[in-house]
Amino acid sequence: MVDEALKPAGLSLVAIDRAAPGRTATIGPYHRWRPSAMPDLETFDRLVDERATRWTEELIEFCRIPSETDQQAPLRLAAEWTAERLRQAGAAVRVLERPDAPPLVIGELGDGPRTLLSQDHYDVQPATPLDLWTSPPFAPEVRGGRLYARGAADDKGEFLFRLQAVEALQDALGKLPCRVRFIVEGEEESGSKHLAAYLADHPDLVEGHGALIEGGGVDEKGRPMLVCGVSGLAYVQLSVRTLAYDAHSGGARLLPNAAWRLVQALATLRGPNDTITIDGLFDHVRRPTEAQLAHLRTLPFEEEEIKRIYSCTAFVSGRTGFEAQVADTFEPTCNIAGIVSGFTGPGEKTITPCEATAKLDLRLVPDLTPELALRCLREHLDRRGFADVAIVPGS
Amino acid sequence: MVDEALKPAGLSLVAIDRAAPGRTATIGPYHRWRPSAMPDLETFDRLVDERATRWTEELIEFCRIPSETDQQAPLRLAAEWTAERLRQAGAAVRVLERPDAPPLVIGELGDGPRTLLSQDHYDVQPATPLDLWTSPPFAPEVRGGRLYARGAADDKGEFLFRLQAVEALQDALGKLPCRVRFIVEGEEESGSKHLAAYLADHPDLVEGHGALIEGGGVDEKGRPMLVCGVSGLAYVQLSVRTLAYDAHSGGARLLPNAAWRLVQALATLRGPNDTITIDGLFDHVRRPTEAQLAHLRTLPFEEEEIKRIYSCTAFVSGRTGFEAQVADTFEPTCNIAGIVSGFTGPGEKTITPCEATAKLDLRLVPDLTPELALRCLREHLDRRGFADVAIVPGS
Repeated sequence: MVDEALKPAGLSLVAIDRAAPGRTATIGPYHRWRPSAMPDLETFDRLVDERATRWTEELIEFCRIPSETDQQAPLRLAAEWTAERLRQAGAAVRVLERPDAPPLVIGELGDGPRTLLSQDHYDVQPATPLDLWTSPPFAPEVRGGRLYARGAADDKGEFLFRLQAVEALQDALGKLPCRVRFIVEGEEESGSKHLAAYLADHPDLVEGHGALIEGGGVDEKGRPMLVCGVSGLAYVQLSVRTLAYDAHSGGARLLPNAAWRLVQALATLRGPNDTITIDGLFDHVRRPTEAQLAHLRTLPFEEEEIKRIYSCTAFVSGRTGFEAQVADTFEPTCNIAGIVSGFTGPGEKTITPCEATAKLDLRLVPDLTPELALRCLREHLDRRGFADVAIVPGS
Repeated sequence: MVDEALKPAGLSLVAIDRAAPGRTATIGPYHRWRPSAMPDLETFDRLVDERATRWTEELIEFCRIPSETDQQAPLRLAAEWTAERLRQAGAAVRVLERPDAPPLVIGELGDGPRTLLSQDHYDVQPATPLDLWTSPPFAPEVRGGRLYARGAADDKGEFLFRLQAVEALQDALGKLPCRVRFIVEGEEESGSKHLAAYLADHPDLVEGHGALIEGGGVDEKGRPMLVCGVSGLAYVQLSVRTLAYDAHSGGARLLPNAAWRLVQALATLRGPNDTITIDGLFDHVRRPTEAQLAHLRTLPFEEEEIKRIYSCTAFVSGRTGFEAQVADTFEPTCNIAGIVSGFTGPGEKTITPCEATAKLDLRLVPDLTPELALRCLREHLDRRGFADVAIVPGS
């Protein structure tokens, strides 16, 4: 959604995460927002100009930490870096700990009758496959006015730009007119396994008058976006085992093949026109209201640009135009994030695989909770005789 | 098939390849065959007893060479080892070469009006996954009277036992009553890509009065087997690409997923009861004759033992008894040897994969040539709108 009150003054340096070229984080002063109720920001603009180079260097330093999902030592380094940077900005910092979990870093700046929350994370997605990176994922490189590194966007870039902006605003105004609380976790990319427990221990952390989610940036045409809602996520692994060990495939007329079993189970989840066919799932999907659809019609949808970026000729189910935009905004997904079974190296090996696994992620919409989605999936598979296909949440 | 004229005297040392525990090669003197037309073999038996330890050591040495499919340097070492061992036995040895191919090793012993061929190979299947080996695949280890190593069976064991037996027979009798020609290749596990070209250059090599195929050994109950025919093989890779690169799975409502595409294509190849549903494939499958079926009924079929070895509760399509035995003997297969797409590491990554591949091996029966099978597969996929799924033979 584009807020027309925001007047972007031009783009110059964009941080790009290679695995998601459509998702960017914009560095520094390049969007000069002028909401009418704000004081004059001449000093702020000057500080931004003076600091832009140093800010980029800070992001490069942050992105050098390979804080991939589940890599405990680098995650801890990234948490310490986050806490230290918040302290430098004058924040009151708390580093919360739980057993077997990366720390939750809290930083508070400013004071006033209202509190703005910023939800961020210092963990990043695994950077594999490495051979697709032009420069290594944890050796940030600026090319053509863009910074390339894992986490440059999603979310080290977004976190740092927010903090740098708040810091500069504080320096320009003398003090902030409100409290800003950063909540920075290390498990966002792996389902935020311990976040609920952290927040249950410290319920005051989520008290506030507004919250920014981790994301942000510009759309395919460079327009800044304000996203007012996002879908949820259920991540599961489907696993099946048919034999004690891989067999020579000369026995394939007799011995059940785990890869075939998984392929057959997965195939029941999707119809011929790529619709999701999990029994009952759409019973829990709230349909968009007329008001929502009317609002959606006012928003741009860069269909051709998205297709160009990914070199894809057609969208899922052959959808185009407003139909595609509605699906993109309001529908759940059932996505195979990965599948593996048997021999996958170069050359040939004639085996009947004993086990097969697939990682599925389901994007969820209002009313469709992870529990409901997984219950639908389990019952769907059981009803079709796939009780042997195990569903392991969050793995 | 069991030849009742063979009287096994007991099993003591069995060579086992971990990936195919049902397939074994029997070392040394433990089957004492007494076909009635053979001369007295007292000297032969004594030589076998004297040499058994050394023969096992030779096999251990041979199995230390990691001559996996497509690993050119170790394949060359294994070819040299093969040639040298044939020379030690007094064979006339030729090492044939072609560009980009492992050598074809030819060794001839004995003389007489008739020639027996022995088709063997010094290459072995890739030993992955390594974590399933109790001892490393190329560090042979004897445990409980069994030798464990990649290639101990299929085919370093079988080749060496044959050569050792021929050598001992020669020493016992003074000379062999016939010519024995070993033809030992290095591409058997990867479709024998250059064998036809080698043989076209040297058509005399296949002139003979009988031939032994590489396999052999004992069945699930320890009975020696003489196999009178085997199925052929077509090995292909199915590949599909839907995007220029992996996308963040937040875009899965729009961006086509290569893993889904491949799963949907594969699912059309197999019916709900695990039957092969490739259009027209069974038009090319010769049905067994009454005589063949009558003969098959005389052969043992160790259904429960096979299920016990692989810890599987039921065979493909729920077949049992003679029905399973007929399928195992006369039907083609369509086996997924491997499948991979997207993120397959530990933890979670939310991507829509841009490409997906599966390795399929089809066991072929008389009349069903590789060309026919692949044409059926291509036409089947095209007819269902999967022209984007590429079929790459032999990869």
